[in-house]
Amino acid sequence: MPQKTPLLLEEIYKPIQNVLPRVEERILELLATPNELSGDVIRHFFQSKGKLLRPALVLFGASFGNSIPEQVILTAAALEIFHSATLIHDDIIDSAYLRRNLPTVNAKWNSQVAVLVGDYLHDKAIEAIFDTKNDRLIATFLKTAGIVCDGEILELKEKNNFNLKEETYFTIIERKTAALLSTCLESGAILSGLDVERILGLKKFGLYFGMAFQVMDDCLDFMGQENEFGKTLGADLQAGVLTLPLIRLIALLDEGGKAEIFSKVKSGLNRSELGDLIRLLQEYDALDYSITKAREFTERALLELTVFPDSPIRRSLEALLDYVVERNR
Amino acid sequence: MPQKTPLLLEEIYKPIQNVLPRVEERILELLATPNELSGDVIRHFFQSKGKLLRPALVLFGASFGNSIPEQVILTAAALEIFHSATLIHDDIIDSAYLRRNLPTVNAKWNSQVAVLVGDYLHDKAIEAIFDTKNDRLIATFLKTAGIVCDGEILELKEKNNFNLKEETYFTIIERKTAALLSTCLESGAILSGLDVERILGLKKFGLYFGMAFQVMDDCLDFMGQENEFGKTLGADLQAGVLTLPLIRLIALLDEGGKAEIFSKVKSGLNRSELGDLIRLLQEYDALDYSITKAREFTERALLELTVFPDSPIRRSLEALLDYVVERNR
Repeated sequence: MPQKTPLLLEEIYKPIQNVLPRVEERILELLATPNELSGDVIRHFFQSKGKLLRPALVLFGASFGNSIPEQVILTAAALEIFHSATLIHDDIIDSAYLRRNLPTVNAKWNSQVAVLVGDYLHDKAIEAIFDTKNDRLIATFLKTAGIVCDGEILELKEKNNFNLKEETYFTIIERKTAALLSTCLESGAILSGLDVERILGLKKFGLYFGMAFQVMDDCLDFMGQENEFGKTLGADLQAGVLTLPLIRLIALLDEGGKAEIFSKVKSGLNRSELGDLIRLLQEYDALDYSITKAREFTERALLELTVFPDSPIRRSLEALLDYVVERNR
Repeated sequence: MPQKTPLLLEEIYKPIQNVLPRVEERILELLATPNELSGDVIRHFFQSKGKLLRPALVLFGASFGNSIPEQVILTAAALEIFHSATLIHDDIIDSAYLRRNLPTVNAKWNSQVAVLVGDYLHDKAIEAIFDTKNDRLIATFLKTAGIVCDGEILELKEKNNFNLKEETYFTIIERKTAALLSTCLESGAILSGLDVERILGLKKFGLYFGMAFQVMDDCLDFMGQENEFGKTLGADLQAGVLTLPLIRLIALLDEGGKAEIFSKVKSGLNRSELGDLIRLLQEYDALDYSITKAREFTERALLELTVFPDSPIRRSLEALLDYVVERNR
């Protein structure tokens, strides 16, 4: 794999750097509550702000228009809150104990608190989207919320399925990840009044970008050092979630090789077995294969930007494509 | 406690008996999905239909108007779906294994499935409410969804608090239960174009009715036979949730009596200790005290109906007040 200097998200976000803090403020405003427990959980969760990728995409989508109306800030905040709600529920489902180097809500409190605070954030996000009073945006968002959930249920259903097809994997990640990232760009574009062609272009860019993003996320689960990532190596697999690198490896192995992996994974991989598996993924080029797939998606995404003239925003979106395949966390 | 012949819900529902099946059909239509796992869970959950109290209240609220527009059916279906989503999540929180005499989703599948299918139902309910295109209704519903969740978080926070005040208890049940029942009547009233005074009357009726309903529900947790109820006796207390009868008892006991109950509850009540506790509740008139409170709420609810002329619908709502304090499940 060729090594490039990884791009800094901070630089990519430069064209929106003055607006992003307003989104962060808006998130906390929208979630202000007299309920002490909710307040504690919200403060804990949002103290580490993550990549803010979804708000950034809303702002980028809107920046091709003539102005950034207040509704855009509200929508960017709402989509980050919605995403946070899904993360809090995901961490229950995966019994995860670390998120962004902090204890998860289910670990610090318990899964009951995580269920309810997740629901609360979900409701607040929808309320904020409704407050934009933009019917097209509301309908788009609600449809996407259903798709995300459906993708997660599909993923759950396919847990521990060692015959998972690539096609099903791509359906899952399109639904659980790419659909929302696509909706972020589309929402910004809708609110800033772009024409149909450009809205569609950004929507498709978001979808391909999202596919690449998730494929790389799944590769990173088998790459790099523990801790550096803020989560455990091999975590998806330990939770029974099969992702592209392993699907590829299984497709290449003979029956004996498959059976060996199945039985090891089923009984829970120890550190050295995980090391063996990662070496096997490398030996069979399963990680490179997956990264190549991610690059194919970023290439398709790049094509969608051709309807836009050169601009700092367009250059940021292009850089985001490089970032996503080069990032190490 | 005086014994009346208990009213049958079937008779109370007579004025809406032709419309209610349309709501049930609509629920299944709204939840139709190609996702096999979601489909299985939905079929399982909705095979036992419960009291359909929320759709009934929407229909009653709407029946004071001139017609039952299609939006009313949609709203009634949406509110039952929303309620079902909260039940599925509640059952995770309470680690409950039976609901309406069937295994809960968390028991039959697992809590991961319950989290996600609950989220899915929640999203579908909101999507349906949005499809009514009635902005006032949408805003009312979204506000209520937040309140319900907030009430549940408050209840969770106060778990195992043996100093819980009656006032806090009433805040919790107003939020987690009464607010939604109130919104059901209000929604029907909004959609059928009632005037402000009548909408407010039905909204307040729903709130008082809801308070009475939850107080009685909490009393029933200490009354009747196991199984008859479809859930375990003393289940709230076992889950650490203190309700009015126990709050009343604790207020009347001396320090020694309190300490004894605390330690028993903390270590988990066995069958005979639960029997002792129920006898103590009776001895101190804590159940009668609670039922009297419930009756006070139904009396306040009854007053709100005076703005409506006599009609089969009004008589059904009056009968519902009797039903709620006389029911045994």
